[in-house]
Amino acid sequence: MRLEEQPPCVVLLDQRRLPEAEIELVCTSSAEVAEAIRTLAVRGAPAIGVAAAYGLALAALCGEDLDEAARTLAGARPTAVNLAWAVEEMRPDPSPERARALHREEVERCRRMAVHAVGLFGPGTRALTHCNAGGLATGGYGSAVGALRAAWERGLLEHVLVGETRPLLQGARLTAWELEADGIPHAVIADSAAASMMARGEVDLVVTGADRIAANGDTANKIGTYALAVLAAYHEIPLYVVAPTSTLDLATPSGAGIPIEERDPAEVTSRFPARNPAFDVTPGALVAAIVTEDGVHRAPYAESLVQAHAAA
Amino acid sequence: MRLEEQPPCVVLLDQRRLPEAEIELVCTSSAEVAEAIRTLAVRGAPAIGVAAAYGLALAALCGEDLDEAARTLAGARPTAVNLAWAVEEMRPDPSPERARALHREEVERCRRMAVHAVGLFGPGTRALTHCNAGGLATGGYGSAVGALRAAWERGLLEHVLVGETRPLLQGARLTAWELEADGIPHAVIADSAAASMMARGEVDLVVTGADRIAANGDTANKIGTYALAVLAAYHEIPLYVVAPTSTLDLATPSGAGIPIEERDPAEVTSRFPARNPAFDVTPGALVAAIVTEDGVHRAPYAESLVQAHAAA
Repeated sequence: MRLEEQPPCVVLLDQRRLPEAEIELVCTSSAEVAEAIRTLAVRGAPAIGVAAAYGLALAALCGEDLDEAARTLAGARPTAVNLAWAVEEMRPDPSPERARALHREEVERCRRMAVHAVGLFGPGTRALTHCNAGGLATGGYGSAVGALRAAWERGLLEHVLVGETRPLLQGARLTAWELEADGIPHAVIADSAAASMMARGEVDLVVTGADRIAANGDTANKIGTYALAVLAAYHEIPLYVVAPTSTLDLATPSGAGIPIEERDPAEVTSRFPARNPAFDVTPGALVAAIVTEDGVHRAPYAESLVQAHAAA
Repeated sequence: MRLEEQPPCVVLLDQRRLPEAEIELVCTSSAEVAEAIRTLAVRGAPAIGVAAAYGLALAALCGEDLDEAARTLAGARPTAVNLAWAVEEMRPDPSPERARALHREEVERCRRMAVHAVGLFGPGTRALTHCNAGGLATGGYGSAVGALRAAWERGLLEHVLVGETRPLLQGARLTAWELEADGIPHAVIADSAAASMMARGEVDLVVTGADRIAANGDTANKIGTYALAVLAAYHEIPLYVVAPTSTLDLATPSGAGIPIEERDPAEVTSRFPARNPAFDVTPGALVAAIVTEDGVHRAPYAESLVQAHAAA
C-alpha cells in the first residue's frame, strides 16, 4: 500500500483477488479509497486505518474538501475504530509525509506486538487463528500472524490451523497465502471444525486480531471469534488478542457500544434468505490476554488497557 | 428414492445438484448405488440406509454376489451406522418388497419422532439447525426438519436459523430448499455466526439429526454439531437430537468408538493444505434429549436408550 504524488494516487493490493491474482488497484480520489475500503479491496482494521490516512493525504494533494473526505473515509465501514482514529491523527497535517509515517508506525507496532506475544508461545505450540490478521490486514507484518511469524522464527511454533472464515474466506485465501509464503506449516479447516480440533487436543492456543477493543476488554473481531472464545474457554485453551493501540477505543465502555456491520446477505447465499453479521463481540472475560505494542495486558482490562493507552 | 424392477434400477434425486437442478440419478448395480452414497448423491444417515436396502434388492434382482454387494454397500461410508443396519435387515429377504417396507418404516419413524419432538417446542420458538436432517436425509419428511415441520404446522415455530454447513453447504443448499418449499420462515447463516445469534437471544433451541448414537448418548453428526452443543450449553439453550432407532448403535459404548470420516481436503480448499473431518462427536452430557420414534429420551442415556431400542 502506498501513496504516489505524481500523479496523485493511492495504490492498493486488491485483496479480493487473492490468492489467484496479485493485482494493484489505483485510487485517484479519497472517494475511491473509501470505496476500496467498503468493498474490501483493502481490509483489516490497521490496514484500513493506513488506507484512510493515505486517502486523506490524497484528498489534500487533489484539493478536495477535507471535511467531506474525512467524513467519507471515517464512515466507510462502521466496526473498526482505526478508520476514525487514522482520520483524526491526519487532520492536523494531511501530508504525504504524515501518512507515510503513520503507515511506518503501524508496521512498527506490529513488530513490537510480536516481541511481546512470542512470550505466550511454549515450545511446539499448535496455534489456531481466524480470519486474516496478517501483513495484508495491517499494512505489513501482521498482528496475530505477526505473533505467529515471530514464534516460528524462534522455533516455538509447530503448526497453525486456519479457520477458513466464511463467508469471505479471509483465512482460506489470505492467511494461508501469507503462511505459505513464510513456509509456516498450516492447514485450513471449516470454521465449524475448530471445536473438534480442540477436543482432540490439537490446539494449544487461539490467536486473533481485533477490529475494536472497548475499555473493558470486550473485543469486536471477525464473526466467529466469539464462538472460538467460548469453545477455547470450554476446552481450557487460552485465546489471545493481538492488536495495536490504534484499535483501542477507551471512549466505548463495553462491547455493547460497538456497532456491528451487517453486510449483504448475498455474501452468504443469494438463493435463500440469509443474515450476515460481519463481526461479533467477545467479552473480555473470555480473552486470556490482549497484546499491544506496549506489552501483554490481562484482566481487569478496565485498568490494564488505560495504562496501555497512556504508554502508547 | 425408488427401486424399479423392469429394468432393475435404483432412482435417486441427485442431492449434489440441488437447489439449482432436480436431476434423477439412475443406478443399475449395487456398486453404482454404493458410489452414489460415497459421493453424496444421496446423503443423510437414514437415507443412505434406505439407499443401501434398495441397493441390496437391486443386487438380488441382477443376480449379483450378495455377500460382495452387502460389503460394498455397508462400507460405502464409515460414520453412519444405518448402512450396516439396513444391510443386516435386508439379508434374510433382499426382495423389492422388503426394501420398500424398510423405506416406508423409516419415513413412518420420522413422523412418529416429530410427534414426540413437537412437545419440546413452546409457542414462538426460534430454532437453529445444522446440515440437513430433512426429507432428503431420511427418505422423506425428515428427523430434525420433521420436528420443525410438525412444530410449524401446530403454530409453535416462529423462525429457523440454518447453519450453512461448510464445506458442502447442506444447510444452505438442502435445508433452506426444504423449508422454502414448506413456507417456513428461515435465514441461512455462516456456521460461525451461530454463537453470536445465541448471545443476542435469538435462539430458543438447537435441533439436529444424527449419524450414529453410541450407547451412552454420545452422538456423531455433521462437523460443527459439537461446536453448537458447547455453545448452546454456554448460553443455556437446549440441544435436541432427533433420530430413528436405526441410528442407535448400542454395541458401541461411547463416541470414542465411532469412526469419523475424513473426506478430501479439496472440499475445503484445493489451493492450500487443509483438513476435512466430516463429522464430530457430541458427548451425551451436552445433549438435552434424544428423540426417537419411541419417545423423548433423557440422561442417563445408558439406561434410556436401551429401553428405546428394546421398544423399537
